[in-house]
Amino acid sequence: MTELDESVRGNPAAHRVLTGDRPTGPLHLGHYFGSLRNRVRLQRLGVEMFVVIPDYQVITDRDVADRLAEHTENLVLDYLATGIDADRATIFTHSSVPALNQLLLPFLSLVSAAELHRNPTVKDEIAHSSQAAVNGLMLTYPVHQAADILFCKADLVPVGKDQLPHLEVARTVARRFNERYPRPDGTTVFPRPRALLDAAPLLLGTDGGKMSKSRGNSIPLGADEDTTARLLKGAKTDADRRIGYDPAGRPEVSNLLLLAALCQDRTPEEVAEEIGDGGAAALKRTVTEAVNEHFRPIRARRTELAADRGHLRDILRAGSERANAIADATLAEVREVMGSL
Amino acid sequence: MTELDESVRGNPAAHRVLTGDRPTGPLHLGHYFGSLRNRVRLQRLGVEMFVVIPDYQVITDRDVADRLAEHTENLVLDYLATGIDADRATIFTHSSVPALNQLLLPFLSLVSAAELHRNPTVKDEIAHSSQAAVNGLMLTYPVHQAADILFCKADLVPVGKDQLPHLEVARTVARRFNERYPRPDGTTVFPRPRALLDAAPLLLGTDGGKMSKSRGNSIPLGADEDTTARLLKGAKTDADRRIGYDPAGRPEVSNLLLLAALCQDRTPEEVAEEIGDGGAAALKRTVTEAVNEHFRPIRARRTELAADRGHLRDILRAGSERANAIADATLAEVREVMGSL
Repeated sequence: MTELDESVRGNPAAHRVLTGDRPTGPLHLGHYFGSLRNRVRLQRLGVEMFVVIPDYQVITDRDVADRLAEHTENLVLDYLATGIDADRATIFTHSSVPALNQLLLPFLSLVSAAELHRNPTVKDEIAHSSQAAVNGLMLTYPVHQAADILFCKADLVPVGKDQLPHLEVARTVARRFNERYPRPDGTTVFPRPRALLDAAPLLLGTDGGKMSKSRGNSIPLGADEDTTARLLKGAKTDADRRIGYDPAGRPEVSNLLLLAALCQDRTPEEVAEEIGDGGAAALKRTVTEAVNEHFRPIRARRTELAADRGHLRDILRAGSERANAIADATLAEVREVMGSL
Repeated sequence: MTELDESVRGNPAAHRVLTGDRPTGPLHLGHYFGSLRNRVRLQRLGVEMFVVIPDYQVITDRDVADRLAEHTENLVLDYLATGIDADRATIFTHSSVPALNQLLLPFLSLVSAAELHRNPTVKDEIAHSSQAAVNGLMLTYPVHQAADILFCKADLVPVGKDQLPHLEVARTVARRFNERYPRPDGTTVFPRPRALLDAAPLLLGTDGGKMSKSRGNSIPLGADEDTTARLLKGAKTDADRRIGYDPAGRPEVSNLLLLAALCQDRTPEEVAEEIGDGGAAALKRTVTEAVNEHFRPIRARRTELAADRGHLRDILRAGSERANAIADATLAEVREVMGSL
């Protein structure tokens, strides 16, 4: 996590961070340890935080946006419960900011079709898509993300390694735009956003695969304690009663150790040592307790906040207003340097 | 022209026509005889007319949108001078209608990358582009046109043969959208637009190639009489003094005969007969007189209108307001059937 902190420590208020999550389902523990926790830390350091909920992008890899309003409100709930301060962060849906979409047109002109096809993240998403063919929204996805990042002139974007190629498209778009449409005084419209590479180790799902909202192998942040216990009870392990941390040789067991360790802020080896040869059952008990213990205050706050859906919608409304004001201003700058386009 | 008329004659008021021109330069005689004249006829028959000026699409095949405001106002001037009634038509720029751009996102999800690459019109535009690589805006161009057509639920689109594949994309988008997002009562959001194939013979440029704003081989609608004479004097012809209409064997001479014939509302053969063996010089004199005669009232009206740029901007403002109201209503319908997206 130190990279995150060092990047902003000099002058936190000078930085604007853009993050976000598609409203396709509840956030899970992988999101929490991989991303949400870092956002809260960054905000507490004093950076300005923009959180986009890219609702239009739900249909990138599925036909229909299911229970969209519910998923969107639940994301806000997850953000607030884990510590995002909505008074200082701008939380908004993509669809509520029309000027953001208008940036898509000039931005699309700045990347070649070949570059879009080469993007490895798009290739991977295509491989996991439920759709038969690559559609135009999927193909242009990195350009939408560039618009999400650049409309608010975010200079820092926390990403996992797999998202780096997307960020590279945003950096390319910013550079090419600035080169093609320079201001007379030599200043440029867009900063080139930098990646804040997430240093957290990757959590696997309960089946040993990548933890994913859509693969049914994740433990939702907002799950209750019984559900958490049940999901962890079903987690894949192995037959060796001696519990040890060996991510390459015993990925599933090691993953559970890592989860407990993250919750208890100690090393996976320490957790393994304590369980000894208690076998999978003891391991699962330990992890379940660690998770439920760690998330108890977060979940309590989540339940409390969930009682007032109007408040969640107010936060989205305020975020959308602020995002619109910024997007309109950026679009005006863009149109001016482009010759009133 | 009869196809145009027959399509709407039954109940003209039930039809909405979408046409438009990119603001890349002055409209020329090819536009007039190929398209503008038909628009005026359709409007006089009683159909509702939408004229989009797709300004963002200027950068599809060039880096910078040059003198955009001027080109845009000149288009309005050409429309009014040739007889479009701005009180009954909606004339607007693409960039002034944000909701139109938002339709682009769901529409992009409805076409495959392979379909975008296969589009023959895009292939042709790529071949004539000044840019080195196919950019994302060029690749997605037919989807932008689908948004232009569908946002106002136009059911008729006058096109030349070369634009048919673009219209096919709009038809496909409409059909797939209606299938994927049906209304509970069985009605659909979008009509499937039909092509009104232009029956006018194709005018060539003064160099014998395709007449084009960007190839410097066209006679602008708004050119004065001396400029018209000079441009026609420089037109390519051949050494045969006997003037005859033979489009395959003598394309340049035949094209000038066609132009004179269109202006004088008679056949090219009649014009040829009259010139006899007067050679290229007599042919050019005849054509110049025919053009200047035919466009004299249009050009006089154009000059008169050009004195009041504020009026042109008012027309664009009113058109934009009306287009925005319609786009907002369509987007609301779209979002409702898509589950509040």
